[in-house]
Amino acid sequence: MNYPSFFEHDQRLIEAALERLLPSAETQPPSIHQAMRYSVFAGGKRIRPMLCMEASGIFAHGDSSHEPNAAIEAGCAIEFIHTYSLIHDDLPALDNDDLRRGKPTLHKKFNEATAILAGDALLTLAFETLSKIPTGAESRVRVIREISQAAGTVNGMVGGQVADIEAERKPVNAETLSYIHRSKTAALIRASVVAGSICGGAKPEDVERVRRFGDNIGWAFQVVDDILDVEESSAALGKTAGKDEAQQKATYPALFGLPKSHEFAKELATRALRELDCYADRATRLRELAEFLVLRRA
Amino acid sequence: MNYPSFFEHDQRLIEAALERLLPSAETQPPSIHQAMRYSVFAGGKRIRPMLCMEASGIFAHGDSSHEPNAAIEAGCAIEFIHTYSLIHDDLPALDNDDLRRGKPTLHKKFNEATAILAGDALLTLAFETLSKIPTGAESRVRVIREISQAAGTVNGMVGGQVADIEAERKPVNAETLSYIHRSKTAALIRASVVAGSICGGAKPEDVERVRRFGDNIGWAFQVVDDILDVEESSAALGKTAGKDEAQQKATYPALFGLPKSHEFAKELATRALRELDCYADRATRLRELAEFLVLRRA
Repeated sequence: MNYPSFFEHDQRLIEAALERLLPSAETQPPSIHQAMRYSVFAGGKRIRPMLCMEASGIFAHGDSSHEPNAAIEAGCAIEFIHTYSLIHDDLPALDNDDLRRGKPTLHKKFNEATAILAGDALLTLAFETLSKIPTGAESRVRVIREISQAAGTVNGMVGGQVADIEAERKPVNAETLSYIHRSKTAALIRASVVAGSICGGAKPEDVERVRRFGDNIGWAFQVVDDILDVEESSAALGKTAGKDEAQQKATYPALFGLPKSHEFAKELATRALRELDCYADRATRLRELAEFLVLRRA
Repeated sequence: MNYPSFFEHDQRLIEAALERLLPSAETQPPSIHQAMRYSVFAGGKRIRPMLCMEASGIFAHGDSSHEPNAAIEAGCAIEFIHTYSLIHDDLPALDNDDLRRGKPTLHKKFNEATAILAGDALLTLAFETLSKIPTGAESRVRVIREISQAAGTVNGMVGGQVADIEAERKPVNAETLSYIHRSKTAALIRASVVAGSICGGAKPEDVERVRRFGDNIGWAFQVVDDILDVEESSAALGKTAGKDEAQQKATYPALFGLPKSHEFAKELATRALRELDCYADRATRLRELAEFLVLRRA
């Protein structure tokens, strides 16, 4: 998956910020910092930091007092959280995956103890990073609250992961599936754009509009992910394809079939994009990024 | 180990706050909330919340505008972090402990996947809690920065755990041992009193004085812990005694013998308490708590 070329500049800014925010590989004790860096720089697509930056851009555009690093660093903090969740998810006690983005998973490359602690460390570093983003204290606190809730157990990422595990090998209905997808995936994507909008200085009603956009685009993203797991090869995905079916995971394609899943992803994307209409040209980049994410092939 | 009776009131406040801050056992998905609650209410001594409250008390005393819940809730957030670290530390890939405070460890009571996710969830909930403590935004951000650094990899808790694992079955010198103890244990204890002082409205020079107190009392606490592991029975400790020696852990008794270890713990405690002299009667409770912690038997 390659971004349209006009996102390349943003990607470079994100990579540079991740490099700056992570302790160097020589920092004591080196093993944990090498492990954290291995996973963060394992070829992630930086979807969440990109969304954070582009959401910020809607509101900050043309405002010379705006500090663009706030959204970049908030986005990197979210990327640390996303990375920790993948590391822990890949562990033998959870998904037991050997491959992630075409490379050995962290516990395979290092060992299980290091993978557990590196995940813990990235989650912790995320909040240290957020406590220092260049905004006022009030915005920092709002961003921290938003992200911690989205990463937590009550309609958040960990809650979604637990529900996902519990739904394996069981018949699930559409309601449970919606809870899983919105918590496991959409919550952190929603938090990315909400955090970005706060960093960009959005007014409360704009933050709420961006929140609805994020919830729907995040949901669409997970439905597309499930579709790709069925339609694409392992080589294209960089991870084991067809794993959802093998694990009897609760997915849209399993519950409704592929054609309906495609339709539903499209409907969610349309719902999301409608929220951005009122921003006209100021939302062009966020709109194109969103379209790219739900129309992507592996 | 029982606290002097005049701490009972504080303990009740802490238990009530933990109860209030944790999602109920019925909240979806119930299994993760039951697991979090199992570990948080498994008989912890609440040392860190107590230290946070008593440090706050030095500065807040007699100030009617002061909100005592700030230090209580910050202390509970630190207790969540402490609890997560114990859950992950007990996992088979790390210390592989079956017993904690006389009860089955979380992965024994539930399963490994739940233990990993419950640890992640408690760490996340800690920062959500801190983002809501009843202080101004500026103090919240300072407390979050302090605690996230203390829990992290650079001279923080996770860094100390990694160094501790790497030091097993190897000859270590006093410098490495000091790094391990100050990072693994003292950092979070120091953050407890620093967070408390910030919640209590301490001036910068007072926060620094409390920081020195916390660093030394936290270090003393770990030396005493190592001594107890040698001197006390498993029944008294509520966990497997003599485990440090069996695992060839780096400890003060192993490096210097018991008499020198006792002496060193006393010296650290004296250094710590000296910092509180200037607060006279206002620090009586913190002083008594500190003395109790380093003079404790299991």
